[in-house]
Amino acid sequence: MNYAVIIAGGSGTRLWPLSRRSRSKQSLRLVGDRSMFQHAVDRLAPLFQPEQIYAVTRADQSALLSSQVPELPVASFINEPVGRGTAPAIGLAAIQLRQTDPQAIMAVLTADHYITDTKQFRRVLEAASSLAGDGHLVTLGIKPASPSTGFGYIQQGESLGTIHGFPVFRVERFTEKPVLDVARQMVTSGRYSWNSGMFVWRVDRILQEFRDQMPALYAQLTEVEVALGSSDYQAVLARAWNRLAEQTIDYGVMEHAADVVVIPVDIGWTDVGSWASLADLLPPDQDGNIFVGPYQEIDTHNTLVFGGKRLVATIGLQDIVIVDSEDALLVCARNREQEVREIVERLKINGDSQWL
Amino acid sequence: MNYAVIIAGGSGTRLWPLSRRSRSKQSLRLVGDRSMFQHAVDRLAPLFQPEQIYAVTRADQSALLSSQVPELPVASFINEPVGRGTAPAIGLAAIQLRQTDPQAIMAVLTADHYITDTKQFRRVLEAASSLAGDGHLVTLGIKPASPSTGFGYIQQGESLGTIHGFPVFRVERFTEKPVLDVARQMVTSGRYSWNSGMFVWRVDRILQEFRDQMPALYAQLTEVEVALGSSDYQAVLARAWNRLAEQTIDYGVMEHAADVVVIPVDIGWTDVGSWASLADLLPPDQDGNIFVGPYQEIDTHNTLVFGGKRLVATIGLQDIVIVDSEDALLVCARNREQEVREIVERLKINGDSQWL
Repeated sequence: MNYAVIIAGGSGTRLWPLSRRSRSKQSLRLVGDRSMFQHAVDRLAPLFQPEQIYAVTRADQSALLSSQVPELPVASFINEPVGRGTAPAIGLAAIQLRQTDPQAIMAVLTADHYITDTKQFRRVLEAASSLAGDGHLVTLGIKPASPSTGFGYIQQGESLGTIHGFPVFRVERFTEKPVLDVARQMVTSGRYSWNSGMFVWRVDRILQEFRDQMPALYAQLTEVEVALGSSDYQAVLARAWNRLAEQTIDYGVMEHAADVVVIPVDIGWTDVGSWASLADLLPPDQDGNIFVGPYQEIDTHNTLVFGGKRLVATIGLQDIVIVDSEDALLVCARNREQEVREIVERLKINGDSQWL
Repeated sequence: MNYAVIIAGGSGTRLWPLSRRSRSKQSLRLVGDRSMFQHAVDRLAPLFQPEQIYAVTRADQSALLSSQVPELPVASFINEPVGRGTAPAIGLAAIQLRQTDPQAIMAVLTADHYITDTKQFRRVLEAASSLAGDGHLVTLGIKPASPSTGFGYIQQGESLGTIHGFPVFRVERFTEKPVLDVARQMVTSGRYSWNSGMFVWRVDRILQEFRDQMPALYAQLTEVEVALGSSDYQAVLARAWNRLAEQTIDYGVMEHAADVVVIPVDIGWTDVGSWASLADLLPPDQDGNIFVGPYQEIDTHNTLVFGGKRLVATIGLQDIVIVDSEDALLVCARNREQEVREIVERLKINGDSQWL
């Protein structure tokens, strides 16, 4: 049996003021009229029954996401009391699936990314499942469209041939976000993919790696596993998660795991991590502008206006990002979107919680 | 007896999106926590009793202005059915004052301007009243702070000596808004003042000029005058105002009137006609920014943020004007504020009346 596990926690602070504590990035309608989470479920539909689709999310974000995708059973939502990074999130899903079928194949997917070629996406998922059935830990690598310094990279090692027509390589190395010069060399070499955070593996195989490489986390996971289905579950989970540090699957498990392979693919993948990356997804007008919501513009160029109900009027602007939300407004130079994070940090420090 | 008549109609489209059909510029709290109209009344208080202060305004703006200045009797509000320019507005006040005292002195004042030296303002009003008592039509000229192309200019002629220490000149000529080169020459010559739209005269004298120079308007005014206090008044006024074209006092009356004098004064006068001029009135921070309302900024320079309740976050901006209102937002390059008018025009053409 195959399962899809969508990792749908996270805060998305770089998409402030739209993404908020009570309104996670995954719940936002950023592309078209479906939320990022709805898109993530939609593209799985032809391959998975609703009962095969799980989402790991934060307890306080779960109700909103569940309401957006009523076709998923409520039991599909695996709720973390607090976010502790991708390793605990994936581990929590894995122990739950082990109860049903230790040999089950588990695709770890995201709701942070937009994928235009969903057919190719499903084809590579099927190919990866075949590989995972043999015990490989499969990572989906994204063919780099640019020397981005915003992603980790996966270095391809020995070729293992092809599966369903997709080339497969042993993973030589996971690298952290590089500086620009290094990123350029990586892309030019043709031997690196972006790390998409999408993985396919057998439940028993990944839990074996957790046990070997992150024994402290694994110990907490087994305590939680014992409590599954009992009235103690929430309390045990909360206690366990309180004890955990933040840990990512990449550095906690994948870097030193055995038998890790990568399938480099081109599926029209975009990380919707910032307003700049979202702008790449929306069709601009002849002046390079993108307007979402009612607007009036005079002599405006290369500007993103992500509005809603309110009218946004722009005059004489160039390379500006405007994001309008109910109670907060962002106006930002277009090459400075990464600093939105700093605004959110300051609001935290100042205790301005109504805008977080 | 002296009267002050505040001309408080007008739309202020260049202050959109704050100024709206239902919320005239005069009713806005642009400087400090008093509206422009409240400031206009406040600075008269030491010189006039509430019963001596009148306001000419549009009927649909009258209730809001009246509620802002409860000390003025409701009868102080002279309501026009529609705005027809300054000449009909002043004429309407003059015929009403003539009923009480044809020899009354009437100071025509504005609520569009901010005056920092209110003591000097009242001193010059008293001086102008003395002159007006002798039959002069007195204009208050503003000593030009710059070669502005946004105002009409008044050319000084023969000196008539001083009154209460203020120099008095015959008016040689009223000029329309000049081009920059001409404005520079005017300011350098020292013989020109800005036309502030403030006048002091006897009621009988100005009505005599209306009769001689604008007989069609005067005929309508006398019809309205006959109906004053009757149950027909509103109907007669509406009919008369429907027949009128827009006419300003400057070109309709003052240019060819007899015995027009000017007192050039420095009273810290600022026309609050656009966001640029408002910015001149508010104290900037060390980066040249002005923030009204809650904000967070990173690397922002020479930027005006006129907000309110909502948080405005700015990153990497230079020379931008941001004006946030309940249902509409303006983001504008700082040298382009005059074009706000065009936005308003387009909304009219499109029938987007909710934002007008």
